[in-house]
Amino acid sequence: MKLLEKIKNKEAVVGIIGLGYVGLPLGLEFALKGFKVLGFDVDESKIPLLKAGKTYIKHISSEKIKNAVDLGNFDATTDFSRLPEVDAIIICVPTPLNEHRDPDMTYIVNTAKTIKKYLRKGQLITLESTTYPGTTTEILQPLFENAEQNNGEKFIVGEDFYLAFSPEREDPNNPNFSTATIPKVVGGVTKNCIDVSVALYDFVIVKTVPVSSPAVAEATKLLENIYRSVNIALVNELKMVFNKMGIDVWEVIEAAKTKPFGFNAFYPGPGLGGHCIPIDPFYLTWKAREFEISTKFIELAGEINTFQPQYVVERTMYILNKYQKALNGSKLLLLGAAYKKDIDDMRESPSLKLIELYKENGAEVVYNDPYVPKLPKTRKYNYEKTSIELTKENLSEFDAVVLSTDHSDYDYKFIAENAKIIIDTRNAFEKAGIKQDNIFKA
Amino acid sequence: MKLLEKIKNKEAVVGIIGLGYVGLPLGLEFALKGFKVLGFDVDESKIPLLKAGKTYIKHISSEKIKNAVDLGNFDATTDFSRLPEVDAIIICVPTPLNEHRDPDMTYIVNTAKTIKKYLRKGQLITLESTTYPGTTTEILQPLFENAEQNNGEKFIVGEDFYLAFSPEREDPNNPNFSTATIPKVVGGVTKNCIDVSVALYDFVIVKTVPVSSPAVAEATKLLENIYRSVNIALVNELKMVFNKMGIDVWEVIEAAKTKPFGFNAFYPGPGLGGHCIPIDPFYLTWKAREFEISTKFIELAGEINTFQPQYVVERTMYILNKYQKALNGSKLLLLGAAYKKDIDDMRESPSLKLIELYKENGAEVVYNDPYVPKLPKTRKYNYEKTSIELTKENLSEFDAVVLSTDHSDYDYKFIAENAKIIIDTRNAFEKAGIKQDNIFKA
Repeated sequence: MKLLEKIKNKEAVVGIIGLGYVGLPLGLEFALKGFKVLGFDVDESKIPLLKAGKTYIKHISSEKIKNAVDLGNFDATTDFSRLPEVDAIIICVPTPLNEHRDPDMTYIVNTAKTIKKYLRKGQLITLESTTYPGTTTEILQPLFENAEQNNGEKFIVGEDFYLAFSPEREDPNNPNFSTATIPKVVGGVTKNCIDVSVALYDFVIVKTVPVSSPAVAEATKLLENIYRSVNIALVNELKMVFNKMGIDVWEVIEAAKTKPFGFNAFYPGPGLGGHCIPIDPFYLTWKAREFEISTKFIELAGEINTFQPQYVVERTMYILNKYQKALNGSKLLLLGAAYKKDIDDMRESPSLKLIELYKENGAEVVYNDPYVPKLPKTRKYNYEKTSIELTKENLSEFDAVVLSTDHSDYDYKFIAENAKIIIDTRNAFEKAGIKQDNIFKA
Repeated sequence: MKLLEKIKNKEAVVGIIGLGYVGLPLGLEFALKGFKVLGFDVDESKIPLLKAGKTYIKHISSEKIKNAVDLGNFDATTDFSRLPEVDAIIICVPTPLNEHRDPDMTYIVNTAKTIKKYLRKGQLITLESTTYPGTTTEILQPLFENAEQNNGEKFIVGEDFYLAFSPEREDPNNPNFSTATIPKVVGGVTKNCIDVSVALYDFVIVKTVPVSSPAVAEATKLLENIYRSVNIALVNELKMVFNKMGIDVWEVIEAAKTKPFGFNAFYPGPGLGGHCIPIDPFYLTWKAREFEISTKFIELAGEINTFQPQYVVERTMYILNKYQKALNGSKLLLLGAAYKKDIDDMRESPSLKLIELYKENGAEVVYNDPYVPKLPKTRKYNYEKTSIELTKENLSEFDAVVLSTDHSDYDYKFIAENAKIIIDTRNAFEKAGIKQDNIFKA
């Protein structure tokens, strides 16, 4: 195969579609390892930033982008007609859910249609977006086989083009692992497909793990995230059960963690966030319906995790009630807007849901997040809110302070000294060594 | 405290009630570390064996028992009136479920009543049996406070006697960890209670982990086993879902395992076994009802795990059906009777349930297990079956061979060469490098 030679000689040009949390770091890895990379994105605002070596994602440094650009290896464009310039096309577009919790395949399908329009012989396409088993062979393959450049004749997969699924495993801000050091599962449609995609990824990823089919690779990513979703839901349920029994779930988890085998700690929280855990599992649920089976664990995990913001609001009511206060009319300060600590990622953040529920019940809510100066507009929410300062006066003015995201930068001692009531959904205060009668876990 | 001094000088005599999978290895640890140990058991048959330095549990060696006896440190009796001879009483009795899946507290309660009868001032009692949060303070404490030797005056906990809960974490045949090297959680009723129990366990256990109350210690053990039960059920559900989609769950799990963080592999099987995972979670379910809450994950895990033997039987029917055979009238050979590999432990083994279901549906079933020459009588089952030999003739005579327990000793190649059809619930044949058209996963 000519492509295989080109890859082995680092002469293959790598195209990345979608320059977000997944595509951008991956593209940079290729560029810094000596490949020419051309990034594609529909968002025009990203292009001049990238060309100028500037980042728009907190945990990806401008320096890294600048290095890749300065090497002459990294360019970005919104012009998809340039797709024939690249030898490998890596699709890193979002796969959200629609409002009925069904897969929203628009990004994948639209991207695939665009690729189909420009597909030329000898190209490799790999999909990295999390999706249901079957996507690669049931949606992408038939589209590409009917590429428009072949005058009605079919492109043959594994000969005229190569197709694989290789799930991203990004974990923003993980101190131990990043794009290049996380092993990567790859499932090709044919043997040639797996050979070229493995050869390509081998240049930038510490270890590639070939599996027998794209469907197995698709299922692998789902298993990983279903596992997380279910285990988070389990501790969220136990948090509620143990709370009724007067037992602190956080202490129980710390004790269980001392078992040196067969236990892995997960922690409760105010609800799931991020682009993966709250969403991915339902891709399997949706596909399973086609086979007339249900995925009960995924449904139950969804039910319990989705309930968590409401649980926090109910706990807030009970706690305020101890002080003879109603939620309605109370002034609340929400600490943390991002979906997890020390990042600025707002996708699916439970803080947004908390604000909605608090407001619905008559509370006045403001927020602070050192990494989120202004709440962004999302598909669902459009708050006009900016982060307030954490001063002594500010803190003492609120009926309650609700900790939603346990950023490491917070001065928990200062907050505890100045807040009237604290509702802690992350056990952050106790972890910081602070125990007070006015701090409640939720 | 006098007891603390006695413990520190190794002059305390340790009494162990229940000389089974938990009590026997623990008692031996104390004896081998220089404590005088007196074991109590209601089963008369155990006593002469122990005195003669002979084992009745495969993974505990006779040599270890003999060493302890020869040191003059280990004795055993059925005479509970000797309880006043010991300074610490460690309760290691079973906590099964009754036929309505409610806690069967008979063993704990009867043991506690016996202790109450003989309790003398200055004794420590710790409970190791897995149970619901509250057992120690709601059942044991009031009983012991009314010890019969005090002429109607109450014994005061933490002064007249010491009481703690410290869950066992035995994992038979774990190559990396055994009794002494697994950290141990301890929750005392009072500070004195925690001090003496930690001092005692510190002599034999690598690390003790004190927690704030017996209830937290009780909940810790439940969390550990609920986590396992739920995660096994999750992969069992996914096995069924992926099977419909033509995806091999075992391959998916192997691929997911290459993620270096945030994933822990669990494996599907023919059903749960052992004394912990199928039972313990329901202790929390039962207790939660008192607080008018439900434990949905535990219920769902129970439902799915309990269904697995039936699933294997259904798969057997479908597989035989491919060969135009009915289950009714078929001759089946079940490989493996113990609940997990390389041990002889039959407690709650799904193999017993499989035999029942196969027989119910008209199949003729025999079994082989190198460690279980004869099926024991259990509360539920009483089969008159002995393990048959695995010869070429034997193997080829059966319509299907069903692998239930993947003992390492099995010669998988030999079995695969001689069996007509193989139904593998553990993926053992593929793991042994054997792929054949007549091997099916279930």
